[in-house]
Amino acid sequence: MKPQSSQTVYQGRVNVEISDYIYENGQKVQREVVRKDDAVAIIALDQEYLYLIRQPREAVDEPELLELPAGTMDVPGESELECAQRELAEEIGKKANHWEELLWVYTSPGFTNEKVTLFKAMDLSDVDAEQDLEEKIDIVKVPLDEVEEIIDDIVDSKSLIGLLTVFSSYG
Amino acid sequence: MKPQSSQTVYQGRVNVEISDYIYENGQKVQREVVRKDDAVAIIALDQEYLYLIRQPREAVDEPELLELPAGTMDVPGESELECAQRELAEEIGKKANHWEELLWVYTSPGFTNEKVTLFKAMDLSDVDAEQDLEEKIDIVKVPLDEVEEIIDDIVDSKSLIGLLTVFSSYG
Repeated sequence: MKPQSSQTVYQGRVNVEISDYIYENGQKVQREVVRKDDAVAIIALDQEYLYLIRQPREAVDEPELLELPAGTMDVPGESELECAQRELAEEIGKKANHWEELLWVYTSPGFTNEKVTLFKAMDLSDVDAEQDLEEKIDIVKVPLDEVEEIIDDIVDSKSLIGLLTVFSSYG
Repeated sequence: MKPQSSQTVYQGRVNVEISDYIYENGQKVQREVVRKDDAVAIIALDQEYLYLIRQPREAVDEPELLELPAGTMDVPGESELECAQRELAEEIGKKANHWEELLWVYTSPGFTNEKVTLFKAMDLSDVDAEQDLEEKIDIVKVPLDEVEEIIDDIVDSKSLIGLLTVFSSYG
């Protein structure tokens, strides 16, 4: 649906736009939208372990949050899969021979266009990669038979969706 | 973690703040955070149906998205449960005699503080309530034995988490 008018009211790492719409029934609504690069997240598994990360999350004032390795598609021209491969190397130090796209979701479609695509990465091997200096990441290896226990501790939506999808009966 | 300095760079329905942090290891990082009211979402069930909604989502340019009834905690002093009760009445026209808090998640903790608390509402009955004039909502009654089929169509993170939690083996 095309807005009647649209104005960018903030430009930074995210942009904020205010747009006016008219529905078919004549109803007028105004929406404030936070525009953001899309993102990817990876369920990385070998025969023994699921690879998660712990990192500080200043946005939600948490000293550390347990999450899937993930990242923003901020490299021009990069595909979702290429971004996932780069982030797996940067955050976990691994490459994967088997990649599978699982699903995608909008993280909060009431106010932002952010979309996250989830991948499963298997058949892992070590790889050298530079870490992102803006991040402070600890790798957490979770034995596969303990994944069910840690799911209750996950409070990051993309990570919870990935783990419920792969490790529940709907996987 | 307290920022060294913090500046509000945009004020609207959401606020945007830029803050500077120094980690224990001396590393300096800057974060842009979108501050937003928290939200609630409801898995509303009777003996036969799950109650979902379809609504236009201009932020993600979708003419309609299938979601759990949900809303923002924008009434001062309102608790999560009170907000869920209000939204269930406004969006579905129901009240529930049985409420259960399931879990909460951060929708995208890399850039926003938004937190969504999920409730299960059962033992439903009709109630009169005014609709929000800024919303255009269709109620969708999904027979309980068809919920599994529609989970694949859900692309809203809070809705997918709620349905996977209640209708999968981890429920």
